[in-house]
Amino acid sequence: MSHTGYRGKSLEFLKKNKIEVGNLVKIQADSTYSGILMPRYEYSDDDHIVLKLKNGYNIGLEIGKISHIETESRQSTKKETISHPQADPKLPKILLISTGGTIASRIDYRTGGVTPALTASELNASVPELSKIANIDTEVLFSEYSENLLPEHWIKIAERFESCARSEYKGIIVAHGTDTMQYTAAALSFSLSGFPKPVALVGSQRSSDRPSSDAALNLIAATKFLVKTDSNGIFVVMHNSTSDDEVACHWGTRVRKNHTSRRNAFQTIGGSPAFIVKNDSIEKNPLFNAPQNAFAPKINFNSKVMLMKYYPGLDPALIDNATNSGYKAVIFEGTGLGHVGKVMYEAISRAKRKGLFIGMTSQCIDGIVRMTVYDSGRDLLNLGVIPLGNMIPETALVKAMWALGNARDIDEMEKMMRENISLEISD
Amino acid sequence: MSHTGYRGKSLEFLKKNKIEVGNLVKIQADSTYSGILMPRYEYSDDDHIVLKLKNGYNIGLEIGKISHIETESRQSTKKETISHPQADPKLPKILLISTGGTIASRIDYRTGGVTPALTASELNASVPELSKIANIDTEVLFSEYSENLLPEHWIKIAERFESCARSEYKGIIVAHGTDTMQYTAAALSFSLSGFPKPVALVGSQRSSDRPSSDAALNLIAATKFLVKTDSNGIFVVMHNSTSDDEVACHWGTRVRKNHTSRRNAFQTIGGSPAFIVKNDSIEKNPLFNAPQNAFAPKINFNSKVMLMKYYPGLDPALIDNATNSGYKAVIFEGTGLGHVGKVMYEAISRAKRKGLFIGMTSQCIDGIVRMTVYDSGRDLLNLGVIPLGNMIPETALVKAMWALGNARDIDEMEKMMRENISLEISD
Repeated sequence: MSHTGYRGKSLEFLKKNKIEVGNLVKIQADSTYSGILMPRYEYSDDDHIVLKLKNGYNIGLEIGKISHIETESRQSTKKETISHPQADPKLPKILLISTGGTIASRIDYRTGGVTPALTASELNASVPELSKIANIDTEVLFSEYSENLLPEHWIKIAERFESCARSEYKGIIVAHGTDTMQYTAAALSFSLSGFPKPVALVGSQRSSDRPSSDAALNLIAATKFLVKTDSNGIFVVMHNSTSDDEVACHWGTRVRKNHTSRRNAFQTIGGSPAFIVKNDSIEKNPLFNAPQNAFAPKINFNSKVMLMKYYPGLDPALIDNATNSGYKAVIFEGTGLGHVGKVMYEAISRAKRKGLFIGMTSQCIDGIVRMTVYDSGRDLLNLGVIPLGNMIPETALVKAMWALGNARDIDEMEKMMRENISLEISD
Repeated sequence: MSHTGYRGKSLEFLKKNKIEVGNLVKIQADSTYSGILMPRYEYSDDDHIVLKLKNGYNIGLEIGKISHIETESRQSTKKETISHPQADPKLPKILLISTGGTIASRIDYRTGGVTPALTASELNASVPELSKIANIDTEVLFSEYSENLLPEHWIKIAERFESCARSEYKGIIVAHGTDTMQYTAAALSFSLSGFPKPVALVGSQRSSDRPSSDAALNLIAATKFLVKTDSNGIFVVMHNSTSDDEVACHWGTRVRKNHTSRRNAFQTIGGSPAFIVKNDSIEKNPLFNAPQNAFAPKINFNSKVMLMKYYPGLDPALIDNATNSGYKAVIFEGTGLGHVGKVMYEAISRAKRKGLFIGMTSQCIDGIVRMTVYDSGRDLLNLGVIPLGNMIPETALVKAMWALGNARDIDEMEKMMRENISLEISD
């Protein structure tokens, strides 16, 4: 029996009632609930059990308040019979690499495990349209919510890509949680600059067992895009409107998640998406051109970079602490055109004397850092702070980790930070 | 002669050529330039002089490359004759408090000083329309770019307001730099909750000597709004569109500067502005209602709050460092619905055991933190992290400084953080 994550009182309660994760159960408490028993994870208390209701939301129920519980069906634990897709030799091949996330979490609650629903056969069962567009090979690299992905995961993804740069695949889909998708997209954009194939990071804001899910729409659009496009490079391919007819392909260094829950949460900052997939057409943004870099992978990251948003009351000692803790770079999210208060100047001076790279972006997120307009900006330039144009703060952070990981010294890092490598600066 | 900020070689150069700050000069270098000699500030090098060109931009010229320099006019240093506005007893009285910023920087470069252009007479000369709307008393509280304002400045502004809560003024304008305007607006919204008069923080994205300046438009709209509105509370009143016909009144806890340079940089997050001033009409957002709190000022701030944006590679030791450095609260800008990676859990646990308040907002900025949807969120709830709804991260930071400054202990602080005091939570 599977009781993943349950312990103590709640585990005892489930065993006594012969209920396991994945069962459809009916519960009488303050009200009547019907839903599937979900697994729990580390750090959970032992007073509650968690049900996934039919509306797609999870609810925690205190076991002390449950007057009756019964199993309505154990069906979800039985193996589903899934037809394997027939490969069509006329269609191009696409590789789908799964890293986890909502898009891959469809059957989590049925099995109690964390196997993503993205084996080729399960994908075919979930989104049968795909097998008419491409022959898709699937591969599970990890099964993590993207908030748990780290720079070492970026490296593993990039290394897997590098190994198929000359393969027969027309393009690559990365199924990825949406929380840190923009960070991974930036990391791949820099480490695999010039990668010869198009890559689509695809996620979903709502899981595929909910009626409003964007999982299938995004996957289908990404597959169409990869099959048809002449472009290479790293894109985030996600829902573009509140209706169901447009999917945007955002360039990997210019994209940001700007809403917690909307399906069209992702936006290109400082411009429009590179491509729009609308039914079977793919519209190119006339202003977009993928950079024509030679493919020379540099797959190292050094996370001794601190992202620091400036705010009134920020303690300058935090910069000294960073220096003393071995940080090599600070990316400021300054105010307005790229400022921090003059209370920070002395600490910035000290950090510069110790050889740190200090770059400036804006917490406004949109617009260009211009440090020549006001005295504050000019003072900071004189202190050695490097303006980073309209680089998105999170992109600048990832780029700094990458530059630090691949440069011989801070001078070379600064040179890499000033260079526009993957359209991260768009003005 | 005024040579503010010039030293060494550049000072010598200016003295030799009998040129001082504020003079209109003509320079022959790689090209011919005509403009007004600007003052320089601390940390400037001594190789350059700075001209303000007629297009409003400043340019630094290397003195070694200047082949000829001559004074075209010294007129700007002579005292301007300004007519004093006639008070019209039928018009309501407005108090204008200046704190500095672009809106107040019009004559900086003429005098070489930092006196803001906001004495009553200068204001009348700059924006004569104002004297037909209200009788405006002006007062200079400080003359700082807003990136240099600190929580102690918030306190001074709030105390000045408190002293005129029962005055004859119909409303108050605060002239303020745009860089940290949203932080000050939030600080006043909490510390002066229930303030009986309407307050308009007004700035400009382009200084009033540039043709595209928004200074006059914003000031006129703010004055009209204060004179006509029945509402009280703290608003940010700024340009609302790329054309010149709309000014938005954003509620002080729901506003964010979302572009470095556009005149309509300020936006209400998660909704529409409270009011729109269009020519002489003031349109109220039907969804907006100012909270009806009793006026009970609590004017303390404790800046031992750390704003921490989560990103892949963020070192959990930074939380321990914060605890060890005496911080009492951490506001996370988590990912998505309000997550941080599980690498942070142990450090969060340790911080909670030491009694820190840990609140969660989202770096998506728009949308609501919902920590019950995914395991990551539920784990964090179990660790004692407090979800802050759709509070803007910067507003949450200011609120935490305020709550920490006024609560007896962390429990009371948590209670204040959960309470919706000034519409900072709008769902």
